[in-house]
Amino acid sequence: MYVRDMPDVHPTALIASSARLAADVSVGPFTVVHEDVEIGAGSRIGSHCSIGEPTPNAEGRALVIGAGAHIRSHSVVYQGSTFGSGLTTGHHVTMREGLVTGLGLQVGTLSDLQGRATIGDYVRLHSNVHIGQLSRIGSFVWIFPYVVLTNDPHPPSDGHHAGVKVEDFAVIATMSTVLPGVRIGARSVIAAHALVRRDVEPDTLVAGVPAKSLGAASRVQLSDGSGPAYPWTRHFHRGYPPELVSEWSAAQGPESAS
Amino acid sequence: MYVRDMPDVHPTALIASSARLAADVSVGPFTVVHEDVEIGAGSRIGSHCSIGEPTPNAEGRALVIGAGAHIRSHSVVYQGSTFGSGLTTGHHVTMREGLVTGLGLQVGTLSDLQGRATIGDYVRLHSNVHIGQLSRIGSFVWIFPYVVLTNDPHPPSDGHHAGVKVEDFAVIATMSTVLPGVRIGARSVIAAHALVRRDVEPDTLVAGVPAKSLGAASRVQLSDGSGPAYPWTRHFHRGYPPELVSEWSAAQGPESAS
Amino acid sequence: MYVRDMPDVHPTALIASSARLAADVSVGPFTVVHEDVEIGAGSRIGSHCSIGEPTPNAEGRALVIGAGAHIRSHSVVYQGSTFGSGLTTGHHVTMREGLVTGLGLQVGTLSDLQGRATIGDYVRLHSNVHIGQLSRIGSFVWIFPYVVLTNDPHPPSDGHHAGVKVEDFAVIATMSTVLPGVRIGARSVIAAHALVRRDVEPDTLVAGVPAKSLGAASRVQLSDGSGPAYPWTRHFHRGYPPELVSEWSAAQGPESAS
Repeated sequence: MYVRDMPDVHPTALIASSARLAADVSVGPFTVVHEDVEIGAGSRIGSHCSIGEPTPNAEGRALVIGAGAHIRSHSVVYQGSTFGSGLTTGHHVTMREGLVTGLGLQVGTLSDLQGRATIGDYVRLHSNVHIGQLSRIGSFVWIFPYVVLTNDPHPPSDGHHAGVKVEDFAVIATMSTVLPGVRIGARSVIAAHALVRRDVEPDTLVAGVPAKSLGAASRVQLSDGSGPAYPWTRHFHRGYPPELVSEWSAAQGPESAS
Repeated sequence: MYVRDMPDVHPTALIASSARLAADVSVGPFTVVHEDVEIGAGSRIGSHCSIGEPTPNAEGRALVIGAGAHIRSHSVVYQGSTFGSGLTTGHHVTMREGLVTGLGLQVGTLSDLQGRATIGDYVRLHSNVHIGQLSRIGSFVWIFPYVVLTNDPHPPSDGHHAGVKVEDFAVIATMSTVLPGVRIGARSVIAAHALVRRDVEPDTLVAGVPAKSLGAASRVQLSDGSGPAYPWTRHFHRGYPPELVSEWSAAQGPESAS
Repeated sequence: MYVRDMPDVHPTALIASSARLAADVSVGPFTVVHEDVEIGAGSRIGSHCSIGEPTPNAEGRALVIGAGAHIRSHSVVYQGSTFGSGLTTGHHVTMREGLVTGLGLQVGTLSDLQGRATIGDYVRLHSNVHIGQLSRIGSFVWIFPYVVLTNDPHPPSDGHHAGVKVEDFAVIATMSTVLPGVRIGARSVIAAHALVRRDVEPDTLVAGVPAKSLGAASRVQLSDGSGPAYPWTRHFHRGYPPELVSEWSAAQGPESAS
């Protein structure tokens, strides 16, 4: 156990004997890969990480990291989660057991995913995002720094927890708190530094403490006057697969400016 | 100096010659235990930690960690603090010098205890909590993610600092800021995303920016109608010693539903 | 490559062959110093750091750390930034490429500098500060915990980003969010837990969500009645060079109480 001779594994890295790494996976110095871990082809693990951190809560489930992952230094990923291919993380990230995520998840530096949550495809979490247990996040969601998705309506309690549901293409801006059980509708936008206590309808902009509706998100205009800012798929395509972008453009019809 | 042959110390861990570890303490890979550290029986230290980080501010005082501690990976604990038995931490925690804490303290991932503070028994800090210097936290307190306890009334200043006082059984919910010198009364509840500028009376619920009283905390009902949510000792007992729970139940009288 | 025999480099540290360290630099256990790094005389690097983290975005620029730096454990500093002498950081800090900073920068534990930003002389960032790309921070600025400087007016977008500008001697208190393109005037004070959407004039105190002016910052009095709290240079001098303090005192005239 511990220490494996593979071409791209740094000699100081410790790899458990039962870990299943594709032949071309690279692992940085001083990283530990524990038992019951599977890492897909082409993945890169940075220095000082703990991958497959053991916990009895994983109930024997492995950690499965899909192909093409890039996990940056000082990150901790627990046993018992499954990540689709194309996972990218920043530094100092913590991701606990019971996560099931889709393709192309991006998790920013210092983000803390508490586990027992589902995340769809191509979700992007910026730095220092806190995802409480029981969260259900759709696809193409953006969450910005210092956002907290909570789950306990009268903390501390047991048996009353309800996760936040964030629907496809929704955006939650910096320093917003979402209370337990709230549903953030598709294509909606939560402005910065808001406290969201009630459900937000699809395509709605909300702001404030507590958050109130300011109207349709799709009425927000880009600051250069080039068209609507939301849904962001009209103008922002960086890093998404070309076939998705074509699909989005087609859905928007001939008036699309993108 | 550095490198010690003990059965549960990983061979890559570095243990200072003067460190006093009980015989059954386990230490993970790539962890450094510095001079002037005492760790009690049955404790577990994760990987990539720095335990007993030196500082002149410790003025020669040792770091004392009571029995049964569990410190998770990438945590930094300074010289010059004393932790009662049963300490548990998440990952990436920083705890500076001059802390004196009671039994069973839980400190969540990414929390930052700035030192020179006192904490009572069975306090639970969730992820990413910031405890400023001079804080005085009672027993059975709960503090949730992204809460900051401040201490400087006109930053930056010297000689005007005043810590926050949090009394027994109080709860501070997510993303709240407590201003310097404020006293949070016993069994009170600070709602999420609040700015607390004034003292909060015992058994009081406050919310908002700035925070205002919404009445007695003990009037908040559990969402399933099973009774009062506060004080939480009526319905939440997970992880507390049975004798304490018995004491709480007795104090609540025959109408208690727990 | 990797592993260098220098008197103050811990034997477990890995130092790239091309890294240029002054002869008296100390490096802690399990730290990695990558290629294209220059570290000035008298600097101390803690344990478990990654210094000169490679990124294609650095476009071949080195990481230059001036003399007398103290970088604490678990910090990550990218290629492609230049730090003036006297840099001090806390633990678990991340500083990305494209930063250009002046003398005596202090960066607190868990702070996240996203890169592509300028910072003047003697700036002090407390714990857990988030500096977005394109920020322009003057000299003698103070930023307190959980402050976020943003840059995207309708996230996510491309080509519309505008950094925050913070002028000399300004203070931003805990848990405040500053929206894109906002200018924080010289000697102004942002109170805790504020949302700053509009420019703040010099010497102005603002507070609230959204933030509103409460008048001149220089009218705020120290709580002991000893005089004005702002500009803080009137009463707070800890850690600044004596010649600067003399200059500040002279500028304040004979009525200065400091």
